[in-house]
Amino acid sequence: MRIARFSIDGNVAFGAVEGDGSQAGQAEGLVLDIIKGIPFTDFELSGTKVPLSKVRLLPPVLPSKVVAFGRNYTEHAAELGNAVPDVPFAFFKPSTSVVGTGDEIVYPSFSEELHHEAELAVVIGRMCREVPRERVADVVFGYTCANDVTARDVQKREKQWARAKGFDSSCPLGPWVETGIDLAAAGDLTVQCTVNGAQRQLGRTSEMIHSIEDLIVNITQAMTLLPGDVVLTGTPAGVGPLSDGDEVAVTIEGIGTLTNKVIKRG
Amino acid sequence: MRIARFSIDGNVAFGAVEGDGSQAGQAEGLVLDIIKGIPFTDFELSGTKVPLSKVRLLPPVLPSKVVAFGRNYTEHAAELGNAVPDVPFAFFKPSTSVVGTGDEIVYPSFSEELHHEAELAVVIGRMCREVPRERVADVVFGYTCANDVTARDVQKREKQWARAKGFDSSCPLGPWVETGIDLAAAGDLTVQCTVNGAQRQLGRTSEMIHSIEDLIVNITQAMTLLPGDVVLTGTPAGVGPLSDGDEVAVTIEGIGTLTNKVIKRG
Repeated sequence: MRIARFSIDGNVAFGAVEGDGSQAGQAEGLVLDIIKGIPFTDFELSGTKVPLSKVRLLPPVLPSKVVAFGRNYTEHAAELGNAVPDVPFAFFKPSTSVVGTGDEIVYPSFSEELHHEAELAVVIGRMCREVPRERVADVVFGYTCANDVTARDVQKREKQWARAKGFDSSCPLGPWVETGIDLAAAGDLTVQCTVNGAQRQLGRTSEMIHSIEDLIVNITQAMTLLPGDVVLTGTPAGVGPLSDGDEVAVTIEGIGTLTNKVIKRG
Repeated sequence: MRIARFSIDGNVAFGAVEGDGSQAGQAEGLVLDIIKGIPFTDFELSGTKVPLSKVRLLPPVLPSKVVAFGRNYTEHAAELGNAVPDVPFAFFKPSTSVVGTGDEIVYPSFSEELHHEAELAVVIGRMCREVPRERVADVVFGYTCANDVTARDVQKREKQWARAKGFDSSCPLGPWVETGIDLAAAGDLTVQCTVNGAQRQLGRTSEMIHSIEDLIVNITQAMTLLPGDVVLTGTPAGVGPLSDGDEVAVTIEGIGTLTNKVIKRG
């Protein structure tokens, strides 16, 4: 099932996406069946349906934190001249960095070099800590597309990446959460990024150095994850600059397309 | 005014701390006047008073994020063999890392070397972004004590510090927020850390490389801060290990004392 979060007439709700065409990110023909309550527990569909074209899609979840892993694809580490780390390493993107599909990515005043980084995002479904490998599937709610937008110039200057990867609008997520993919399938999906329709990144999640299970075990050794928290799994090779007016799209096989426009002010 | 957050009989409330003895962290003689609502807007005291000894103090705020700055005291950078950075750099501690005074600091399974780092914490009072220097005072709600507990061994192994500085219980805050200190005064306070009563760290906030104004300007260039968000301003020299059973106390002049016990399981 695909679960979207959206606003209509000033109200915010979750809904199940019905219909085809979602793969290409096309709203035509798609309908949302409004969910009663929130989708992290047992829920019912209301049967009240609204066309997707009539709503504004929001970030599909409101994470208390986004935990992102660096250098999890060998070719991407190499393209930036970095060694593959001996152990996974994680950084945070804060809740204030999250935007949805269709929202703008805004250049912060202190960067001249934003880069796209297309990534598979794991959405956590239940409060969890010290998750053993065999229970990882139980804490995953579903998957969505993410763009780990990075101020590459700032990342080079500042030892820790709070500003380089945590600025407002640096974490587009969406368009919705796909709950029908199991762990094995999530580990073998195509991840693509285009800018103005031209392909920039193309990889498969099977190329990850550390698997989704590895990453969830690693981070929950340290900290509690909450429903709606998001784990970003690293980006494949092909990262590159985003310019004012660019339209950047992250497409993941079986999930959909996350599209954002880049804006540079002043 | 000193504003505490506490639970009593299963209810959570904010209260204004009245009475003396707070400097030494002693609850004796202190009383809480319960605040109607939350303290980030205009608020009234209810006149209903409870002895501090009858409540459990909680973290004084519930930050959506804690933004911490590294190497902001020259002698601390030197003691770890690090150069003073050319520009400030920030990292995050997540909401799930926050505990209050009296709570336990629990060793995570993957570390053998937790260190204390006593720091002045700035509590943000209003939603803000791109704050100009002359408006910094307007966005500060008050100040509290923080311990930026760090898994030093993990910090050395992992390039980004999400696990080393973001594990559950790695961010004790408290005992309350002091709102009666202005920016100039906050820039010249004694910061002390003791372990089992023996002094480990002693510094003054006047030794900061980048001032409170610098740090707030720097981080709000990048991201929105929300009421209750916390900015940690760096630690003076003298950091050192914490062992099972240790009692670590951070005392800041004019604010109070934050005390936590260290526990190692398994």
